[in-house]
Amino acid sequence: MTKPCFFCDVQQQDDLQRIAESEFCFSRYDDFPVSKGHAEIVSKRHIESVFDLTAGEFTDVQTLLQKSKAVIDEEYSPDGYTVGINVGEAGGQTIPHMHMHVIPRYNGDVTEPNGGVRNILKKGDYSDQAKTAGKEKYL
Amino acid sequence: MTKPCFFCDVQQQDDLQRIAESEFCFSRYDDFPVSKGHAEIVSKRHIESVFDLTAGEFTDVQTLLQKSKAVIDEEYSPDGYTVGINVGEAGGQTIPHMHMHVIPRYNGDVTEPNGGVRNILKKGDYSDQAKTAGKEKYL
Repeated sequence: MTKPCFFCDVQQQDDLQRIAESEFCFSRYDDFPVSKGHAEIVSKRHIESVFDLTAGEFTDVQTLLQKSKAVIDEEYSPDGYTVGINVGEAGGQTIPHMHMHVIPRYNGDVTEPNGGVRNILKKGDYSDQAKTAGKEKYL
Repeated sequence: MTKPCFFCDVQQQDDLQRIAESEFCFSRYDDFPVSKGHAEIVSKRHIESVFDLTAGEFTDVQTLLQKSKAVIDEEYSPDGYTVGINVGEAGGQTIPHMHMHVIPRYNGDVTEPNGGVRNILKKGDYSDQAKTAGKEKYL
């Protein structure tokens, strides 16, 4: 790999925008936030994806997820969250070093929030399909 | 809560569309898939969000994430994944019972995949901003 890795490099910097840190991971504010308080949980080890995390690293992801939420809730009081991980170029991953996006969501930030991450691919609101399938009681 | 919970009910059904199961969680194919092989990892316990998972439950999420990937890779050979969790109505969560979407991604399934879950809110391709910020070496 000739291209430098941003998440390897950023660990050496003073301006890490750090939120919290654990043995195997750290969380920081995203450099190009899509909402107020947009954070990311990053493995210290250079691994490509969430599927490569060891059990210990995955445990740290949970710890930092909860710590980051506490900090973001205190600072920004969001109404919800999108927690998401892009895997592979087809999945839109631009930096091949495991990171989980923690994106605070605010009422009205999109016109039709229903379905959340489903909207990556299609209309997230599946209520018409659910009605057709006789599952309207769950709507 | 007068509305029945789909993910509580589905555990009692024969047609669970089960992929894998562990002590605290199970994974199954989504009823309204947005891509071939779209799965979800669900806590057996009725809790609202990923932030409510115990350490043991979070460990099971990792186990099922890896098992589900193996099954989906074998069956559908996707090119990438979007792994995501919607939290709260503002985050597009429609069933208030913790579930993680495992969405297989395929080359060309969207015109501009870059940024993945960032696209929930904004244009995911932040390369112009990165250039402006002097970070083009990471692109």
